[in-house]
Amino acid sequence: LVRREVVRVITPGTVIESELLGSAEARTLVAVALDRRTDQIGVASLDVSTGAFSVLVTRSGSDCSGLRTELARIGPTEVIVPASADPDLIAAAREICPVVTPYPDESFAPGTANELLKHHFQTATLEGFGCAGLPLAIGAAGAALAYALEMHHAPLTHITTLSTRTAEERMVLDEITLRNLELVSTIRGEAKDGTLLSVLDRTGTSMGARLLKSCLVSPLLNREQIEERLDAVSFFVDHPMVRSEVRSLLHRSADIERIAGRIAYGSATPRDLVTLNRSLTVLPMISSLLSDPEVTVPAEVATAVAGIEDPGSITDLIERALVDDPPANTRNGGMIRDGYDETLDHFRSLSGSGKDWILDLQQKERERTGIRTLKIAYNRVFGYYIEVTKANAALVPAEYDRKQTTTNGERYTTPALREQEQQIAEAEEHLLERETMLFAALLTSLAGSVPMLQQNAASVAWLDLYSALAEVAVQDGFTRPVIIDEPKVLIRGGRHPVVEQHVEGGFIPNDTSMDGAEEQILIITGANMAGKSTYMRSLAILCIMAQMGSFVPADHATIGLVDRVFTRVGAFDDLARGQSTFMVEMVELANILNHVTPQSLVILDEIGRGTSTVDGYSIARAVLEFLHGKGKSGPRTLFATHFHELVDVEATLKRVRNYHLAVQETGTDVIFTRQLIPGATDKSYGIHVATLAGVPRKVTDRATAILAEVMGREYSTTPKKARYTQMLLISPESEAVEHPAVK
Amino acid sequence: LVRREVVRVITPGTVIESELLGSAEARTLVAVALDRRTDQIGVASLDVSTGAFSVLVTRSGSDCSGLRTELARIGPTEVIVPASADPDLIAAAREICPVVTPYPDESFAPGTANELLKHHFQTATLEGFGCAGLPLAIGAAGAALAYALEMHHAPLTHITTLSTRTAEERMVLDEITLRNLELVSTIRGEAKDGTLLSVLDRTGTSMGARLLKSCLVSPLLNREQIEERLDAVSFFVDHPMVRSEVRSLLHRSADIERIAGRIAYGSATPRDLVTLNRSLTVLPMISSLLSDPEVTVPAEVATAVAGIEDPGSITDLIERALVDDPPANTRNGGMIRDGYDETLDHFRSLSGSGKDWILDLQQKERERTGIRTLKIAYNRVFGYYIEVTKANAALVPAEYDRKQTTTNGERYTTPALREQEQQIAEAEEHLLERETMLFAALLTSLAGSVPMLQQNAASVAWLDLYSALAEVAVQDGFTRPVIIDEPKVLIRGGRHPVVEQHVEGGFIPNDTSMDGAEEQILIITGANMAGKSTYMRSLAILCIMAQMGSFVPADHATIGLVDRVFTRVGAFDDLARGQSTFMVEMVELANILNHVTPQSLVILDEIGRGTSTVDGYSIARAVLEFLHGKGKSGPRTLFATHFHELVDVEATLKRVRNYHLAVQETGTDVIFTRQLIPGATDKSYGIHVATLAGVPRKVTDRATAILAEVMGREYSTTPKKARYTQMLLISPESEAVEHPAVK
Repeated sequence: LVRREVVRVITPGTVIESELLGSAEARTLVAVALDRRTDQIGVASLDVSTGAFSVLVTRSGSDCSGLRTELARIGPTEVIVPASADPDLIAAAREICPVVTPYPDESFAPGTANELLKHHFQTATLEGFGCAGLPLAIGAAGAALAYALEMHHAPLTHITTLSTRTAEERMVLDEITLRNLELVSTIRGEAKDGTLLSVLDRTGTSMGARLLKSCLVSPLLNREQIEERLDAVSFFVDHPMVRSEVRSLLHRSADIERIAGRIAYGSATPRDLVTLNRSLTVLPMISSLLSDPEVTVPAEVATAVAGIEDPGSITDLIERALVDDPPANTRNGGMIRDGYDETLDHFRSLSGSGKDWILDLQQKERERTGIRTLKIAYNRVFGYYIEVTKANAALVPAEYDRKQTTTNGERYTTPALREQEQQIAEAEEHLLERETMLFAALLTSLAGSVPMLQQNAASVAWLDLYSALAEVAVQDGFTRPVIIDEPKVLIRGGRHPVVEQHVEGGFIPNDTSMDGAEEQILIITGANMAGKSTYMRSLAILCIMAQMGSFVPADHATIGLVDRVFTRVGAFDDLARGQSTFMVEMVELANILNHVTPQSLVILDEIGRGTSTVDGYSIARAVLEFLHGKGKSGPRTLFATHFHELVDVEATLKRVRNYHLAVQETGTDVIFTRQLIPGATDKSYGIHVATLAGVPRKVTDRATAILAEVMGREYSTTPKKARYTQMLLISPESEAVEHPAVK
Repeated sequence: LVRREVVRVITPGTVIESELLGSAEARTLVAVALDRRTDQIGVASLDVSTGAFSVLVTRSGSDCSGLRTELARIGPTEVIVPASADPDLIAAAREICPVVTPYPDESFAPGTANELLKHHFQTATLEGFGCAGLPLAIGAAGAALAYALEMHHAPLTHITTLSTRTAEERMVLDEITLRNLELVSTIRGEAKDGTLLSVLDRTGTSMGARLLKSCLVSPLLNREQIEERLDAVSFFVDHPMVRSEVRSLLHRSADIERIAGRIAYGSATPRDLVTLNRSLTVLPMISSLLSDPEVTVPAEVATAVAGIEDPGSITDLIERALVDDPPANTRNGGMIRDGYDETLDHFRSLSGSGKDWILDLQQKERERTGIRTLKIAYNRVFGYYIEVTKANAALVPAEYDRKQTTTNGERYTTPALREQEQQIAEAEEHLLERETMLFAALLTSLAGSVPMLQQNAASVAWLDLYSALAEVAVQDGFTRPVIIDEPKVLIRGGRHPVVEQHVEGGFIPNDTSMDGAEEQILIITGANMAGKSTYMRSLAILCIMAQMGSFVPADHATIGLVDRVFTRVGAFDDLARGQSTFMVEMVELANILNHVTPQSLVILDEIGRGTSTVDGYSIARAVLEFLHGKGKSGPRTLFATHFHELVDVEATLKRVRNYHLAVQETGTDVIFTRQLIPGATDKSYGIHVATLAGVPRKVTDRATAILAEVMGREYSTTPKKARYTQMLLISPESEAVEHPAVK
């Protein structure tokens, strides 16, 4: 009996084997350290399969909203928390990631964690990683590493660096906004299809796909950085041949980052290495494509190209050591190439000559005995045997030992055959041992190249990202946004990149002009189904795309940097949590009002819908006034409402503008043109929609009569629409009229 | 090389192996035949694992609503449709069951199907199955059977009968209502937890659990049938000792139905049979418990007991044939008991004596050679060998043949050992062959008992259902409902069975009095979070529970039969389908208004919320008038609204009553008492909820001011509340006042 040791424990956050991993998905372990006194949390995220390791310190917030936002952005597969953590914090984490594992407090202590990290990275200080003065960052990172080390029982040498992020470097997209805008999963919680990610992801490698997803949920806040990314995308837009060649090369690259992780961990398979080799031969081609002296590449592309290091001896080594099409694992050998190792070759020839000897014996014995059907075969129970059919039993020589009787014949052996069998078995045993040893040695000698592989992987990921964003920009007709610091937005012909893929008969683009200091709040009224929600979401999506460095679906877009996007659209009862629809709505609203800044973009869809008309109206109006404020500017806000009474606010709050989605009435029919035009409307066409939906005529006719009666009483005469005609920016009849704000 | 045949194809709807099945879940294959001309569909449902097979003909409906309802009820794992079926129909099916497989039209043709079914059941006509005159039923059933036969490549003899249901026998619960009421899955689409099923399911067997789920989604419409079920439940409520004993016996019963299916198919494992046997020995105990001459059992219980047939010779046969704790599969033998088969015993003793001989040899050789550490061992490559450590090499006798050298010693063999080894190997091969053959023969001889086993399984399932419903009734304080034919509802102290499990501080019960001819429509106003949704859902759930034959969570319940339950509560945008929130709302409303009958129960929550106030009000009012109608009675309706203007309808429509959920104001605080009391309220406390949710004070204070202004303008003086005080049925202050309607 062999004494068995636990060599590793598999948990959702620490899986490394490729068959357990979806390739484009990061498997991220998150550790959360907390300080109740300062209401700060440290959030470390570690992808053991690639070695990616980063940490950030942020505010937790009374309702753990900071933690939720961070977790929603990362999308971890496992979260570890101190064993003494509040149940509230654990519950908040569990809502976003079902696997939350308590871990001893000791591992989160800055002292312990500091020592572990320094020992792992072999550094004297953590200053180089930017977290030296941040005990929560150290605690979280140390705990994540400690957990991963414990689960893997291995030194995890591919984790070579730790990057400390500050919460302020990235646009904040809370969990609700991520869901409402359907960036990486749909509102119904389904995976990719129908999301912005699904439209943008034209990457050719899993490394690029992971990077794209992480950029999408963390748009930048720094104009220079955004412009650098846009330059890189522009380059690939402007050079279609280069883009096409780079992309076809990228498609041939495997997941270098993950394979590097498995090399470091010692679990890479022979097939992994051959795949890696094939990918590595692609790199110099990419590099030389982008090093054409006649083409000037932008800084970001140049950096990525500079990061491609010649793998040099590695590829030769793998090429020499492994056969071209090795088995998926080392269990039965057969991966090492002939000529790589003399001893192995020797064993192989022994085994081979043994088998030749047996074939030879078969031939000899057929001739000697005159039994033409005599054959020598092998099975696991009896080893090699000579088989003779019953009909030929009389011809069997006396020196054959009978081994077994079968229905069709007899099986024999001879001392010579037995001896040869034993030699073959021994040779094969030695063979397998030797191959296994050689492969392990190969992995060891490759381990030193892991940092180089990781660097190459990062370069590939960035080039993949830029060329993929360029590809979608060209194919879907996106334009490069103009990024400015002032809180403005000017869009001409903006579209919703996801919805436009599913609309029959063409998506109707819309213009937007906002300015925190003048046209700050747009109140949007108009018919149901006219496209209010789609319009509002498309604006938020445009800003996010621009700040992640992507081109945007519009004819023109000037976008002033947005620090946070807030959305409040729709909701449904959460009976399980005991919250009514309206309570959910108000909680989300409170979160917005408590965190909004003058640089934010706020999308509010029908605030106050879940309560009585007067309550709802009062709340909606108070919210409008709050967002408008008494100062000179405020957060850019889109405010859709069915409270037509609210349009009067335009008269009292100077930065409020009314807009509506145009509708054409032709006799009894109603056509939604889906165009946003200035001015308010007092018609919602709710009864028209009810008719479309199949509500019985009897009901809709009566509703029309009731409506006429109510309108006659309350809304009598004022010709409200007339008042706005001169403000039209774009005539719904002729698209040729220029938007005066977009030169 | 053995020629391989496809012996079966595994598809989601035709899985039979236990390891691929969740035990309490039915794996149901559904086939849909359709006739465009008559707008009828035949829906056959077949659970291959148990043999349960039924079919029904119903209307499809222009939007496939009939199909959706039926599929939502069945919850199939795979749906097959004619290859020529409309994309609309396929899309509708796919929304409920992702696996929709087209199958040749020919199989759905009544002629082909008729022949196949008659051949399978060995009958001359299908009249006995009740579907002789129903070509769509025959087509659907035939196609389902054809598909299952094709996938299994086996005669599926355990499918012994087909039951034809008519659509009218059961209460109709459409897909939306199933979801809104969270009967078997939550609104968020999660599995069991938080559903009515999770509360009711106290069954002890998988058979009972499957039956409970199917009864829950198909409540009865026939009063006698309901009373019979209630009698059965009452019996177990009234006899706690019997209930407890039956339940503890049931807990010892395995899934007889599924095992019977595997016996018929020939895939039952040795462990299956032993498990079956243990379960079968429980049956006579249950039967004798319920056959006590001093206790009168109700008809349904008597029928179930009568269905328990003495398994007789089967149990003996299995007992004799198999060891007590057999392996999970037949691969390595070891399942047949000693003494069952002489030949097998002979092989066993050969193999055993061979091993004894070897032990004996080891002893002898130790003594003879004086090597005390000499041992005889076995490995797969070299077979048996004598191992001697290096230290003792000198003592090895000359006649030992060296077989292999290891690091610690040498391995030898002798001609005698070699011969013995060969005999052992032969004996073991024969042994395994014989065991496999004997087990196959056992399965064949059991196959004839499959119908008897299925009948026993059905009896067990029903007894399990009744005793489980009794158990939950006693534990959760349910009462037996009084079922009447008139369209009335009288509830005293009704609770929501799921929500009451999660409410801290006790659930507040509510009374309800409705009557299609007098108090037909209850308009419910009142504060947000006051519990309107929970109250309305609880009423629907009470009706459904009563009609499935369960006791209900109330102090008293008189329930007039309900033919359909309709619900419209909340909604969220379905951007992917291109429908706005309001459109979804209207489509669901249209479905209700187009199908409602005077015997229906309608739950409408805030109809008209998604559009402008005037549109919404007009629609809501027109719907109220439509449901009220001009006749003498109409569908019982609960109508929650935030349009306070609607309460005036009570004055013009005679069968409308206003109710609201009481709220106590104490200074600045608001307490939700969650009690439904007569009369309307004009307060929604929306701003109060906003404050609770954390909306900034600045906003809520301003909202309060705006509200006061609006109310001052529009609602000025009328003291609406006073008008209803004399109508109070139950005083909110004292619970002792009797509900006059409940004697």
